[in-house]
Amino acid sequence: MFENKGNGKTSLSEFGEFALINYLTKDLKNYQKTTILGVGDDAAVLQSDSKKQTLVSTDMLVEGVHFNLTYMSLKHLGYKAVVVNLSDIYAMNGNAKQITVSLALSNRFLVEDLEEFYLGIRLAAETYGVDIVGGDTTSSSKGLIISVTAVGEVSPEKITLRKGASEGDLIVVTGDLGGAYLGFQVLERERQIFEVNPNNQPDLEPHTYLIERQIKPEARKDIPPLLEALGVVPTSMIDISDGLSSELLHICHASEMGCQLYEEKIPIDPQVLTTSESFNLHPVTICLNGGEDYELLFTIKQKDYPKIKGNPNLTVVGYITSKNEGANLVSRIGELIPLKAQGWDSFSGKEV
Amino acid sequence: MFENKGNGKTSLSEFGEFALINYLTKDLKNYQKTTILGVGDDAAVLQSDSKKQTLVSTDMLVEGVHFNLTYMSLKHLGYKAVVVNLSDIYAMNGNAKQITVSLALSNRFLVEDLEEFYLGIRLAAETYGVDIVGGDTTSSSKGLIISVTAVGEVSPEKITLRKGASEGDLIVVTGDLGGAYLGFQVLERERQIFEVNPNNQPDLEPHTYLIERQIKPEARKDIPPLLEALGVVPTSMIDISDGLSSELLHICHASEMGCQLYEEKIPIDPQVLTTSESFNLHPVTICLNGGEDYELLFTIKQKDYPKIKGNPNLTVVGYITSKNEGANLVSRIGELIPLKAQGWDSFSGKEV
Repeated sequence: MFENKGNGKTSLSEFGEFALINYLTKDLKNYQKTTILGVGDDAAVLQSDSKKQTLVSTDMLVEGVHFNLTYMSLKHLGYKAVVVNLSDIYAMNGNAKQITVSLALSNRFLVEDLEEFYLGIRLAAETYGVDIVGGDTTSSSKGLIISVTAVGEVSPEKITLRKGASEGDLIVVTGDLGGAYLGFQVLERERQIFEVNPNNQPDLEPHTYLIERQIKPEARKDIPPLLEALGVVPTSMIDISDGLSSELLHICHASEMGCQLYEEKIPIDPQVLTTSESFNLHPVTICLNGGEDYELLFTIKQKDYPKIKGNPNLTVVGYITSKNEGANLVSRIGELIPLKAQGWDSFSGKEV
Repeated sequence: MFENKGNGKTSLSEFGEFALINYLTKDLKNYQKTTILGVGDDAAVLQSDSKKQTLVSTDMLVEGVHFNLTYMSLKHLGYKAVVVNLSDIYAMNGNAKQITVSLALSNRFLVEDLEEFYLGIRLAAETYGVDIVGGDTTSSSKGLIISVTAVGEVSPEKITLRKGASEGDLIVVTGDLGGAYLGFQVLERERQIFEVNPNNQPDLEPHTYLIERQIKPEARKDIPPLLEALGVVPTSMIDISDGLSSELLHICHASEMGCQLYEEKIPIDPQVLTTSESFNLHPVTICLNGGEDYELLFTIKQKDYPKIKGNPNLTVVGYITSKNEGANLVSRIGELIPLKAQGWDSFSGKEV
């Protein structure tokens, strides 16, 4: 279908735009019954179901702002671009069904690069059972820009918004936190060492978990069905893309509530504890401000506590208070420290 | 909410990312009953309706590739970014309901620029009665990149795909063609004149229609209800974003058919006829290859001809043949000229 250059690589301009889209999306498998028509027409066609509501979520990822191809293969990037969107659907207590993937990329990328990127997209689609139903591929004057839109569904009685938490509700997080941010620090350190001495063999073995959390994050697709099996409908829910502090403040703000978050309760993997020390970073600070863990943060009624008690996926980290008590971290010594939103601000290039 | 600089302008970094999204999307009006929840949570929530299928369409627009801010205000750009997506929904014979708008933009843009862009987005939403339910706003290292996703619905028995045309079907276009491309040529000529002599006052009066077609295109929202009122379900449909030739070839290819397109039937506005002469361009060539008219191209059964006959919105331009007869233009002197896809290829920067 296309000619190889001497190096076995193919420039994008050797393809026409339509040929390229066709090439990248041929043989796409569909996993969802609701996908009536996927890529190839003016719009995708999805079957509605009167008992459910449709969820739509979209994210844009920009090279040099949200990702850096020094640390990450294009396959991992494709996988992550899908996962971060699906995470938003799961955060509504919904089930993700379809995605569209749009790309703008400069001519430094070759067709083989795009194939690798699509391998990641397809792997994520297969892993999460979502269908790739559309998109757009075009050129950019600089770098790679990815826009993914995810479509999902949820029963109206199970939907979880950011608002809905009320006084006394328990605050729960899934999995553990801080790994993704620390994984990034490890990769950055190794890059700097490599620049000084390219013969240095990095020993990434002790940091496998952290690096995987950074370069191949997973979304908590398992949580909505787990909650259903446990008979729990959270009163509010959000995914942790920007750090626990920022996300909890989103819930408090939307719900017009305050909170008490217990430092000692925050679930942290042992690798985060050991590695954070070598970076002179406090593991709790990393969890609060680090981001990219894509765990879920939700609140439940106190009466539902027995249903989740002891579940290894779920940790109670605090409770919701009235708004005028503020949003606070309770330190190990019982000190109240006001929570601050320290998510990443892509415009100012600083933590906010 | 934000401090003005001396010139009354505000840099993006003075806002946080969340504050900026909140600022741009506050007071959004919703026009659709199916919009349960719009901007502000992990995902938008749309009510499904069991009698309808959901349509999803997405487009990415890149500065310097798809648009040039020399010719176009940010308000017009915002309007156009929405319109080109809605056009895809109407091309499925559907009704557009919601959109998400994602942006990546460099720090050369100011908050006031973004406000102007959103004025256009909001005007389009109001004009077409669609709800802005989500999106993402982030920084880019260069230029402006826009990704819009439109969600619509259609009854399964009325949906029109690109495939579905069969031998003998009549080929119909809405409105007239060529204006948008010629409008671009006029704007480009005036820019060049201005560069040579900045005191020259351009006389755009004779080209008003052409320029409006280029900078403020409209999507044919009226056509699906018109077809319904006429009792016609097209056998295939597509919107004309890349030129009549390329779009007709899409229909022929998807339907595994050929076609005869009559040069003398192609609907052309008088301004296109007079202005094309001064550019030494053939008006039919402009219609075939020009693009960006956002009219609809569809095929109907011959038996439906009496229903559309004489309608000022609709022009029969040819008919569908078997595949082995090829896709041809029939010239005024009866010559058969094979149609070529001459849409714009963003990668090679040339017509394909």
